Amino acid sequence: MAYVERNTETTSPVRLALIGSGWIGAFHAESAAARIGGTRLEAIADPALGPATELADRLGVAKVTANPADLFVDPDVDGVIIAAPARFHSSLIAAAAAAGKHVFCEKPAARTLEELDDALAAVEEAGVELQIGFNRRFAADFAAAKRTIDAGSVGEPRLLRSLTRDPNTTDAIPNADRTPQWTIFLETLIHDFDTLNWFNQGAVPEQVHVMADALVEPSLKDAGYLDTAVVTIRYSNGAIAVAEANFSALYGYDVRGEVFGSAGMVQAGSLHKTSATSYTAHGFSGETPRLNVELFHDAYTAEIAHFAEVIRSRRDGTPAPELVAPGGADARAALALALACIKSVDTSAPVNLADVLPAAVQASALPADAR
Amino acid sequence: MAYVERNTETTSPVRLALIGSGWIGAFHAESAAARIGGTRLEAIADPALGPATELADRLGVAKVTANPADLFVDPDVDGVIIAAPARFHSSLIAAAAAAGKHVFCEKPAARTLEELDDALAAVEEAGVELQIGFNRRFAADFAAAKRTIDAGSVGEPRLLRSLTRDPNTTDAIPNADRTPQWTIFLETLIHDFDTLNWFNQGAVPEQVHVMADALVEPSLKDAGYLDTAVVTIRYSNGAIAVAEANFSALYGYDVRGEVFGSAGMVQAGSLHKTSATSYTAHGFSGETPRLNVELFHDAYTAEIAHFAEVIRSRRDGTPAPELVAPGGADARAALALALACIKSVDTSAPVNLADVLPAAVQASALPADAR
Amino acid sequence: MAYVERNTETTSPVRLALIGSGWIGAFHAESAAARIGGTRLEAIADPALGPATELADRLGVAKVTANPADLFVDPDVDGVIIAAPARFHSSLIAAAAAAGKHVFCEKPAARTLEELDDALAAVEEAGVELQIGFNRRFAADFAAAKRTIDAGSVGEPRLLRSLTRDPNTTDAIPNADRTPQWTIFLETLIHDFDTLNWFNQGAVPEQVHVMADALVEPSLKDAGYLDTAVVTIRYSNGAIAVAEANFSALYGYDVRGEVFGSAGMVQAGSLHKTSATSYTAHGFSGETPRLNVELFHDAYTAEIAHFAEVIRSRRDGTPAPELVAPGGADARAALALALACIKSVDTSAPVNLADVLPAAVQASALPADAR
Amino acid sequence: MAYVERNTETTSPVRLALIGSGWIGAFHAESAAARIGGTRLEAIADPALGPATELADRLGVAKVTANPADLFVDPDVDGVIIAAPARFHSSLIAAAAAAGKHVFCEKPAARTLEELDDALAAVEEAGVELQIGFNRRFAADFAAAKRTIDAGSVGEPRLLRSLTRDPNTTDAIPNADRTPQWTIFLETLIHDFDTLNWFNQGAVPEQVHVMADALVEPSLKDAGYLDTAVVTIRYSNGAIAVAEANFSALYGYDVRGEVFGSAGMVQAGSLHKTSATSYTAHGFSGETPRLNVELFHDAYTAEIAHFAEVIRSRRDGTPAPELVAPGGADARAALALALACIKSVDTSAPVNLADVLPAAVQASALPADAR
Repeated sequence: MAYVERNTETTSPVRLALIGSGWIGAFHAESAAARIGGTRLEAIADPALGPATELADRLGVAKVTANPADLFVDPDVDGVIIAAPARFHSSLIAAAAAAGKHVFCEKPAARTLEELDDALAAVEEAGVELQIGFNRRFAADFAAAKRTIDAGSVGEPRLLRSLTRDPNTTDAIPNADRTPQWTIFLETLIHDFDTLNWFNQGAVPEQVHVMADALVEPSLKDAGYLDTAVVTIRYSNGAIAVAEANFSALYGYDVRGEVFGSAGMVQAGSLHKTSATSYTAHGFSGETPRLNVELFHDAYTAEIAHFAEVIRSRRDGTPAPELVAPGGADARAALALALACIKSVDTSAPVNLADVLPAAVQASALPADAR
Repeated sequence: MAYVERNTETTSPVRLALIGSGWIGAFHAESAAARIGGTRLEAIADPALGPATELADRLGVAKVTANPADLFVDPDVDGVIIAAPARFHSSLIAAAAAAGKHVFCEKPAARTLEELDDALAAVEEAGVELQIGFNRRFAADFAAAKRTIDAGSVGEPRLLRSLTRDPNTTDAIPNADRTPQWTIFLETLIHDFDTLNWFNQGAVPEQVHVMADALVEPSLKDAGYLDTAVVTIRYSNGAIAVAEANFSALYGYDVRGEVFGSAGMVQAGSLHKTSATSYTAHGFSGETPRLNVELFHDAYTAEIAHFAEVIRSRRDGTPAPELVAPGGADARAALALALACIKSVDTSAPVNLADVLPAAVQASALPADAR
Repeated sequence: MAYVERNTETTSPVRLALIGSGWIGAFHAESAAARIGGTRLEAIADPALGPATELADRLGVAKVTANPADLFVDPDVDGVIIAAPARFHSSLIAAAAAAGKHVFCEKPAARTLEELDDALAAVEEAGVELQIGFNRRFAADFAAAKRTIDAGSVGEPRLLRSLTRDPNTTDAIPNADRTPQWTIFLETLIHDFDTLNWFNQGAVPEQVHVMADALVEPSLKDAGYLDTAVVTIRYSNGAIAVAEANFSALYGYDVRGEVFGSAGMVQAGSLHKTSATSYTAHGFSGETPRLNVELFHDAYTAEIAHFAEVIRSRRDGTPAPELVAPGGADARAALALALACIKSVDTSAPVNLADVLPAAVQASALPADAR
Repeated sequence: MAYVERNTETTSPVRLALIGSGWIGAFHAESAAARIGGTRLEAIADPALGPATELADRLGVAKVTANPADLFVDPDVDGVIIAAPARFHSSLIAAAAAAGKHVFCEKPAARTLEELDDALAAVEEAGVELQIGFNRRFAADFAAAKRTIDAGSVGEPRLLRSLTRDPNTTDAIPNADRTPQWTIFLETLIHDFDTLNWFNQGAVPEQVHVMADALVEPSLKDAGYLDTAVVTIRYSNGAIAVAEANFSALYGYDVRGEVFGSAGMVQAGSLHKTSATSYTAHGFSGETPRLNVELFHDAYTAEIAHFAEVIRSRRDGTPAPELVAPGGADARAALALALACIKSVDTSAPVNLADVLPAAVQASALPADAR
């Protein structure tokens, strides 16, 4: 053979490990193992060893464990992806950071500000990266809208809207009775809160009011279950935002954003799965997006690629990506909104953020480079 | 450590090698090396060793050569991706096939039917796979349109349209004077010809008429250069198709398809880069797609993933993908149309396919499982 | 001449008279005089005789008066179109009705429930028609959405949205300091309230919460002026609605509606002035609608045509139109929402409709044929 | 009464008379009688007195005749609207003009260039107005596209497309066997020819090639019947245009235009009946336009309003409308294309316009103010 053999050892991959091999964890695993150049999925941790092993086999990953702590002591792991249930997030962040691992954590980073602050202190102490899974920031249309806002085409924001309607196949919610009570705020609308904070960067939320209900599963309402919510938010710059969620959209996965301001408006989000449109005797028609990993396939992939790129820049001295990913301060700002929503539901009244977050300096009020 | 160590040796990647490290070759290389699970880019061949080596280093590929023949004798190569200049395609197909390598070849597979038939004979003799880079078949919107047609929503096709307008940044075509004379038919419209044949599956083209011109670069017209063309095609089922191309769309990359029939119509292709739309004092506005690797990012990736999946199914006995990729017969059908176009330009008259392709049985007339 | 002469005296036009020759009054006058078959503009009343006379001359109307009472005693007037300032609406309705004239009145029909109820009593006593200028019900897209809802495609409504953003040319509101304090609720959002009540027919609003501000003209905020408002409404069927308004959309006139329910969603409203779209080096672009009489040209015309058709059916015994136009009960339901909004602003708290409208039976809860 | 009585006699309406009370004639009659300010439908002529009388009664028109000549001698007729069958158009134009009546004539103005030239000579001799019913020029989206072209956003046109697909309810064409042989060119595509000439103003068609067939009604093909056609046109500026027609679109009435040039592209035409869109478990959907008088309701009305405005400007000295309506030269240019198409079908070859129109100076090559 006449090959010019190259030494490829210098180009060492960024080695990621996964905690939690469920739906979105598995997707991130595939991204790290197969969709992104220069990354390697080193290990998978999940107390449910069965699915973890199956995933590992499918992706050619050699190391599987029931115990996340194994990842933290593994010198061949550069960063961890936390996709465990939300109640474990903050302690896993803290432990990973303490071990010197960079952290990508699915939202919400925590369920209370206290546990979040503990985790953020650990991150700061360790000096590691913390990236939160607010994937919409990596969606092409939302990112284009953000650029439009940053370019001044919208002017000063005055009215904002962000909505999430989860796809469904029948008008009943699977396992609704086992869904934690405040899921609609802590796990669903938290995406919208981050989007609104990001779109309205430079301002902070001051007041929140919620109307919410169990309309899909009314029998669970007395137990405090909510599947429908409309949140209005008043920001420090006067802008008024609406965040809206529902757990049962039979037409698919509906995520949209809109910012209206002194100079114009921008919208993001689409309900067309592809550009293909049919025209028949019944009119025009086409397909709608159905799954989060379908609508946000590229965004979910891009956020992990970004995480890897940041790790590489810190490890190998390569240039850091220009984009600043959502971090701890953003997690805190979104969580504060979710907590204020819970209080608004409990009191049936508007809630001032100051009453939830007394001494906090909220993230989005800071210039991006201060975060 | 408490890892359950898995043996990952059984999941051997599909090993691909690249011939031609130009624009689209580099993209395919990245797909094989980094965007697709279960594949490995084993080697790169390009007489221009500089770019090839740079690409190899970037992707961590150890083997680089100026001579494609090195790939053919490498036992660690399962399949080759031919992205060399068009004039080398057919002989490379033949050589790769003779060496027992599966072949993915960019369009056109050949410049004459004679050289194509030689290559196809080698492929058939060797029993290897041949997939042609008609990437639109792997684009989500074109594939959705095809499913709509196959489902009968359009009825019997009667009018079809496929167009390609290549993006440009100024109203002048770089290197137009070095562009081979019939490029607009052999390299550009050949995509549209395949799309039309595919959309009108079961029928064969019978007659072609061309109006073409050098409108962007009129000074080159006398040399036979063409940058603008409208082709009308009459099919055996009566359907009339229009294929249209131009080399200088200042608004970006414009690829669309439309099939109208006895029951309805379907359209594919979009000029919106994302769903983000702005609204200002000047009206509404948004971005248009600019590059082929942007508009068809997923389609280019999917076609290589498909090629790898077919190789794996043959090598490892895994299930073959359901979708049938475009192969030699499709390359032949599209090439025949391009050659008929050339004759129509030369004679300024309609041309019967029978006069270009006397004894041929055209591909699209055959049932898909016969190909 | 060989004409077959027809006796055309039997086809007597419906004779309408206008009160208030301002912007929208003039448009209605043109509709009655020139855009609709079978109607005649008999007279115009306006204390500003100058503009009234000019309009009359332009439209060939012989009778002009400064005093609306002249219209009420004119036996050649079948119905009146009230387009005077809002503070005169209810007394004009009452006087016209008492004189036996059918009444079309621009919104709002009144500024308080008390004065509205007096007017409605006069209408009922006289047995005349009362149609309210909720023109969106006559817009093709809103009407199509309503048919979709009525057909059950949306299922049970759960989340609704209606918005109005008035067009502007600079980011300052002309005559803002002379705008009555609660205009955003009584004159702008009242359209959205009617749309929401109509889309969610069969349910009644139970609770309202408002966030509002003077963001375009902050210097007027202390005087109670509001130019931006977000209203959330909880309906008796659990549905939660958002009504949103702003007085300064630099991109034009933005009116949209959306209903999401147990089976799907429907949207109405468009920001494309025509279907024409341009594509240039800057991306795609097109015009947005600028004026209410542009966006709702056909709807404004259709509502007057409907009014005339109802009059004819009562006068001549011709068939009544199938569609039921918005009437007194709808005016009352929308007004109650506006009044609840004012109370919510005053108290900075959610307001129960029951506290604004204690003994009321709201219109939209009744079956359509009971109104 | 205290009315200020105005003398309205000075504002005399423009008096129009209709010839031919069929589908589109009846629509124009309604426009003249009821949709447009300042016009009056004075008389109706139709050999079928029954429908003419019914229409007259409905619109309150006193004069009905079987003989168009009665209109020409009626001093109370300012202009005539010719909506008779196409074979009578040119002689009616000539007769009306000779009588000093202004003429609005539905397309085609004639079936041969000879009879057209006779009619145009009569028009010129009489000095009356002649407006042709190329209604697309008055459609808001096509007019917006034209303004975009005139503003230079498209640059020099290079590729154009215009299509007409007539709506249908079953895949069979009513009365196909009684349709004149060349209807698809003379009555349908003639609209597209005018649109293309208008969009490509300043250039003239030089060559035409046709592929056409009877695909909906194949049994009539031997009789020369055609229901499907694709026409390619080469213009003097190099631009290549495609005009396409079919008589059986089950999804409704489909009329679109597209101009691509050195600087960009513009598109007009829409298949959305309204902006309302539904989203259900089956995807997104909405209504398509069904009838010409639905899609072009405003355009049909506007062209008659324009005709009346021109008459008024000539009769009363009011300012003429800015827009130049399509006239005799445009009719001639479009007809020449239709005749060239017929020759191309007959010869199965491309046809030079020079061979159809030897000594002609074509209209669209002239500056607009020379017409």
